[in-house]
Amino acid sequence: MKLIRFGEPGHERPGIVDPSGAIRALGALVDDISGEHLSRAALGRIAAVDPDSLPVVPPHVRIGPCVATVRNFISVGLNYVDHALESNAPIPPEPVLFNKLTSCVSGPDDPIVLMKGSEKTDWEVEVAMVIGEPAYLADEAEALSAVAGFCVCHDVSEREFQLERGGQWMKGKSGPTYGPLGPWLVTPDELDVGNLDLWLDVNGQRMQTGNTARMIFSFAKIVSYISRFMKLMPGDVITTGTPRGVGMAMNPPRFLKAGDVVTLGVTGLGQQRQSVVPHRTV
Amino acid sequence: MKLIRFGEPGHERPGIVDPSGAIRALGALVDDISGEHLSRAALGRIAAVDPDSLPVVPPHVRIGPCVATVRNFISVGLNYVDHALESNAPIPPEPVLFNKLTSCVSGPDDPIVLMKGSEKTDWEVEVAMVIGEPAYLADEAEALSAVAGFCVCHDVSEREFQLERGGQWMKGKSGPTYGPLGPWLVTPDELDVGNLDLWLDVNGQRMQTGNTARMIFSFAKIVSYISRFMKLMPGDVITTGTPRGVGMAMNPPRFLKAGDVVTLGVTGLGQQRQSVVPHRTV
Repeated sequence: MKLIRFGEPGHERPGIVDPSGAIRALGALVDDISGEHLSRAALGRIAAVDPDSLPVVPPHVRIGPCVATVRNFISVGLNYVDHALESNAPIPPEPVLFNKLTSCVSGPDDPIVLMKGSEKTDWEVEVAMVIGEPAYLADEAEALSAVAGFCVCHDVSEREFQLERGGQWMKGKSGPTYGPLGPWLVTPDELDVGNLDLWLDVNGQRMQTGNTARMIFSFAKIVSYISRFMKLMPGDVITTGTPRGVGMAMNPPRFLKAGDVVTLGVTGLGQQRQSVVPHRTV
Repeated sequence: MKLIRFGEPGHERPGIVDPSGAIRALGALVDDISGEHLSRAALGRIAAVDPDSLPVVPPHVRIGPCVATVRNFISVGLNYVDHALESNAPIPPEPVLFNKLTSCVSGPDDPIVLMKGSEKTDWEVEVAMVIGEPAYLADEAEALSAVAGFCVCHDVSEREFQLERGGQWMKGKSGPTYGPLGPWLVTPDELDVGNLDLWLDVNGQRMQTGNTARMIFSFAKIVSYISRFMKLMPGDVITTGTPRGVGMAMNPPRFLKAGDVVTLGVTGLGQQRQSVVPHRTV
């Protein structure tokens, strides 16, 4: 299944993408695509419904982030060998974890509003997992059963704030609109998650390509590892690292400026398109 | 006002502490003490009610965390000079930020359940702020108007997981029961927040003493600073650092073990008492 949320910001409604690609309204079945509706049982109830029986949503509606009320937004850093190398960072022996504030979450095609004073806003295409069942001390073999689905995540990153302002990374990862999620939350049965292509273009120029086969730590390993240190809960989102090709690593470095357009996508998870706009209060 | 949540875990109900110290049930006014009920307007509606008109809650009820559905749990590290010195860390020129997973939150007198494999679980008494109004790019002068209230926070910390497992600190800050909050959420009008004493005992022995006058970055500065990098939202919790006297800094280091009892408190914010128990699945 491909779950989706549509409508104006803060007023999104739940939907499902039918085989023709049209959005069907799910409001009669669930209030929203949020943690309490992502358990195996709840997803099973949605899967049992014939999409053709649901009302069609008019095209050209705004698409919101594919999860409502993200509980915690956890990120894995340096999870592709080629990105660790371009970052002059060692290959991590254990997953590097940091977090994004949940107020950074935005829709897949919403603008990226540059943070006040930002001169080093950078791009990172990633695959995110959305947790549907609690997971604590989960074996690697059972870990993926806690995952409700996967989505495209743009882990937009302000490098000065992330790396030059002292301490931990979250300062550069959390600005409003710096966490587009979606368009779809895709259930695992539709995906070969160990072999998904990722790509990202800036103004039509290919900047990043990668494949989840080259992740240092697999999706199952990541969930199992995190669950040794904390209890994952439905509605938590884990984004799993970016492949090589970020702007910070270019020579000279290149960062996003107002007027740029970023497009990105992942096999089976759909595409995002963001216009970069000047700072304003969001 | 002193707001409080009482009842069994996951089923807490909202209350208010009356002048005699008794808990009065607030359920007729609000669903819970959570972000949407912490705006100035919502707190004003509660303040307008005579506590004597509300039903008395029987004593000896369990006290839950003083905020429901914590949105983001942000921590400021090394915010007291004496703790930075004992940690062999430089005095930070800007606030050091990290986060705790929200599933770590527990009641003020709930047991601390040691994390699996933990040999370095340490104590940290802190004052936390709970956000009641959105704050983004807030001036220092206006920053505290976004704060609904203050509470005691025990920032329980597993030092091996925090410092020896690579990357950021959240691995050692996020275990279930490693974030007791409460007993009360106290509104700012009841407090001289720049002059609050903090203390923490282990098995009756005084380990930490401090005063918020010795914070490197004040409450207002912290809110203003964080709001330059991310948009704070109602229900976010910010804990503001611990004074000297943690176990890691003792010679030899001392950590919590099953059977220990930790008591801690802050002027005007009440006290917590936790028994330390062996690892079990929480």
